[in-house]
Amino acid sequence: MRRDVPLDHAYRLMNHGPTVLVSAAHAGRINLMAAAWAMPLDFKPPKVAVVLDKATFTRELLEASGEFALQLPCRASADLCNTVGNTSGRALAADGSNKFERYGIGHFGGQATGAPLVEGCVAWLECRLLREPHLQQAYDLFLAEVVAAQADERVFSNGRWHFDSAPEDLRTLHHVAGGHFLLPGAALQAGLLPERS
Amino acid sequence: MRRDVPLDHAYRLMNHGPTVLVSAAHAGRINLMAAAWAMPLDFKPPKVAVVLDKATFTRELLEASGEFALQLPCRASADLCNTVGNTSGRALAADGSNKFERYGIGHFGGQATGAPLVEGCVAWLECRLLREPHLQQAYDLFLAEVVAAQADERVFSNGRWHFDSAPEDLRTLHHVAGGHFLLPGAALQAGLLPERS
Repeated sequence: MRRDVPLDHAYRLMNHGPTVLVSAAHAGRINLMAAAWAMPLDFKPPKVAVVLDKATFTRELLEASGEFALQLPCRASADLCNTVGNTSGRALAADGSNKFERYGIGHFGGQATGAPLVEGCVAWLECRLLREPHLQQAYDLFLAEVVAAQADERVFSNGRWHFDSAPEDLRTLHHVAGGHFLLPGAALQAGLLPERS
Repeated sequence: MRRDVPLDHAYRLMNHGPTVLVSAAHAGRINLMAAAWAMPLDFKPPKVAVVLDKATFTRELLEASGEFALQLPCRASADLCNTVGNTSGRALAADGSNKFERYGIGHFGGQATGAPLVEGCVAWLECRLLREPHLQQAYDLFLAEVVAAQADERVFSNGRWHFDSAPEDLRTLHHVAGGHFLLPGAALQAGLLPERS
């Protein structure tokens, strides 16, 4: 059901503006959080940008390990997304636990990084941090190169999302505020305006 | 129909990941382009990030003037968005023209910047460039502070999008590839996962 996505199609996973989950691991500790502020940054090699607040434990882990994963939750995992977006892994880590354990969230190993990949998502992008200390400190902004990508072939194949023909539960989430999300709806093919003389 | 959006709600205009139009003016020349890679960067003061290719004429204008506008096209302006995303203003400028003239696109003056605001959009964010030369040169990434925001009150009010109760023509555009867009569809309120003991 999970299929590799060629790296030159990786930007298409995030081009339509979905909310993502960010996951990272370091020295035996793992965590995940939600981030609505993420976008593609380049085509080839594929790069991404994501905003990570200084208070987040995931940020601490990925700054230490230099790698993380972005993954796209879907309608079926909306409660998961909302839950990890409203809890902190730091206190759990102090007790030797983490959000995966506490909330029964499954994860599996990646292809190119040690970041835990979250089950129940529809796409996964493994990322290697491009260290830009000024940017990280002044703007909480993190840049990374995508080094592996996978997607659920039921809803993404041949470089395209197919929300129309897949179960509604597989639609990506687009955060508005306070756990309120929009799902992708109708598609349209735009034309070109005529030139005026 | 256009209403001011308080600056502390400005991030909500872009939180759900819409494609934007970028417009700028300098020394009597004006241009606009489309950008799918744009996102909020901070709440207060509100900031945004947007990727602008080195080849674009709009980038040249906003680097010179230090200001620009992001605005959200909608279903009704999908052809406009696709057209300005697939043409260059540089050749038109050499002839003393611009995309607004060539394609009959209306624009109006902003409240806080000299950037032309595009008619037929559903939200407008006027931005002042935060100059980060390394970032602009190495990643084509531009950061800015939002200094004024407006939205079409038929579809955005009280800090929320109301796509359900507004005409479908006012839905924002989320670019997939090649002029193919997704519109926001159903909304959902997420809950919280139970804790495991």
